[in-house]
Amino acid sequence: MKKFMNSVETIVPESLDGFVAAHAGLVALGENRAFVRRARLTTGKVALVSGGGSGHEPLHAGFVGHGMLDAACPGQVFTSPTPDQMLAAAQAVDTGAGVLFIVKNYEGDVMNFDMAREMAPGEVATVLTNDDVAVDSSTYSTGRRGVAGTLVVEKIVGAAAEERRGLTALAALGERVNGATRSIGVALTSCTVPAAGRPTFDIGPDEIEMGVGIHGEPGRRRRAMASADALAGEMVGAIAAELGEDPGEVLLVVNGFAGTPLMELYVMYGAARRLLEARQLRVARSLVGNYVTSLDMAGCSLTVTRLDREMIALWDAPVLTPALRWGM
Amino acid sequence: MKKFMNSVETIVPESLDGFVAAHAGLVALGENRAFVRRARLTTGKVALVSGGGSGHEPLHAGFVGHGMLDAACPGQVFTSPTPDQMLAAAQAVDTGAGVLFIVKNYEGDVMNFDMAREMAPGEVATVLTNDDVAVDSSTYSTGRRGVAGTLVVEKIVGAAAEERRGLTALAALGERVNGATRSIGVALTSCTVPAAGRPTFDIGPDEIEMGVGIHGEPGRRRRAMASADALAGEMVGAIAAELGEDPGEVLLVVNGFAGTPLMELYVMYGAARRLLEARQLRVARSLVGNYVTSLDMAGCSLTVTRLDREMIALWDAPVLTPALRWGM
Repeated sequence: MKKFMNSVETIVPESLDGFVAAHAGLVALGENRAFVRRARLTTGKVALVSGGGSGHEPLHAGFVGHGMLDAACPGQVFTSPTPDQMLAAAQAVDTGAGVLFIVKNYEGDVMNFDMAREMAPGEVATVLTNDDVAVDSSTYSTGRRGVAGTLVVEKIVGAAAEERRGLTALAALGERVNGATRSIGVALTSCTVPAAGRPTFDIGPDEIEMGVGIHGEPGRRRRAMASADALAGEMVGAIAAELGEDPGEVLLVVNGFAGTPLMELYVMYGAARRLLEARQLRVARSLVGNYVTSLDMAGCSLTVTRLDREMIALWDAPVLTPALRWGM
Repeated sequence: MKKFMNSVETIVPESLDGFVAAHAGLVALGENRAFVRRARLTTGKVALVSGGGSGHEPLHAGFVGHGMLDAACPGQVFTSPTPDQMLAAAQAVDTGAGVLFIVKNYEGDVMNFDMAREMAPGEVATVLTNDDVAVDSSTYSTGRRGVAGTLVVEKIVGAAAEERRGLTALAALGERVNGATRSIGVALTSCTVPAAGRPTFDIGPDEIEMGVGIHGEPGRRRRAMASADALAGEMVGAIAAELGEDPGEVLLVVNGFAGTPLMELYVMYGAARRLLEARQLRVARSLVGNYVTSLDMAGCSLTVTRLDREMIALWDAPVLTPALRWGM
């Protein structure tokens, strides 16, 4: 295992320190590195808090800032943060309008965010994301996994929160965006967890894992490597089967797992876009890059969200975070 | 070799098509895919044109847009674009104020941009970038290689061009920024060129290539993997030896080669920042991410630019490109 780190024990905190130093104008670190928060809060706005295991950067801390999250709690690699972290984050960023937790559907995260919600003195609601169509339950999840669609929920609900919508309305919007969003991933290689020191799973030189999870969880099937068009075909087919037959407008996110270069992500984008448009799903908005990663895994995921006018306006609204910024 | 592609022959054009479709509001494709240009040109502004072999995405096409380039010419993987491409790009984006070529110092690129300059009917000047301190000459270059410092030149000169500065002044500014910029890279793995189908070089499980080029060219030495602090120490030492002893302000770019996750890049950022500040080089501006990549190589480079007031203002100026955007 070759990784840029000083030790397995310090890779997460040192990375966090570097992250906050590099983006000091936008974000600040909570006590004991329990969370990353906006450098400046907006009074009277519902505060959005997310978090989860580290190893998916820029998710979630990279999405802290105007138009998205107010705070993010980083756990150890692929390990939920603790309820104490979530509680500290909620208390630090709640300016009186309440807190919305955005939680990916993994048992540890769900349990810990639930405990934090019970402990919190203020009003807290939760949106659970479970956009991964690959499998119905998985290694760390009862029900579908929350993957890259989470960033779509964070962006759209984050924009609505800037408009001073209330907690109940934001939670409902989050449910609606999650319900309109489907994802599936494919791995060309395994990731390597620093503390394990070896690949999470074995995979042959011509094999891929279709439907892989963002922690290297098994997918639908191990299959032979195939052309970009064939892979995109299987992935778009799985997503479209869930999104329904109606024509409409969609957001297409092609998300790299960190080990795959942009050149290849744009090939997949082109392939997926053609397939969606052949199904009368017009790609009205797009995002291509490494946003919800899996340590050093080579591979990518496709996320498709059915858009309405409101969701397009909120997607287009200004955002200013370390990892996503436009309009300001 | 597992890559998301339909064929070795089509990976570059299909990726370009996907890129332009994903960023249709910002960029457009020239005839025969000879170049990527801004969707909208600004009359009376000197046009900045760059280009080079593909495989370094988002460089250069990802930097086409307001505040940076007017056009970029993509070659085949790790192969210079042709003079015809550069000439077509220059003619397409020259609105009467002349064209500045920004060229990384590789023999093929230098020769072809020179030929294009001679063929161009309008006024053309050239800035050559050669920021890589690793070796004095290399596989494809006489003299030092141009690497990630090129994006610093493109950003700062691009901002100055928006202020309607003239061609001679912009060329001089480009020389000044390049002269204030030093880089060095390190590879943990080789890259794999699609047409070759196997890694460009062999490297052991505990070895790294210190001073690697962005095409996998040999660096200063093959050494054992070491801690992030030790690697950053060797790299910052090599850079600082060239930047001189004077205290001052710097821009620090930690650039991933595409196969290394953000978590590790931020560890390297923190380490490099501490080392620079111990040398009285205050890190006033920062950029961390995959910007000048080497196909799927795991590794990173450090780039340090000595900043003055003018350069800081131009770095901070609004930029709106597929890969870099702030302030608008």
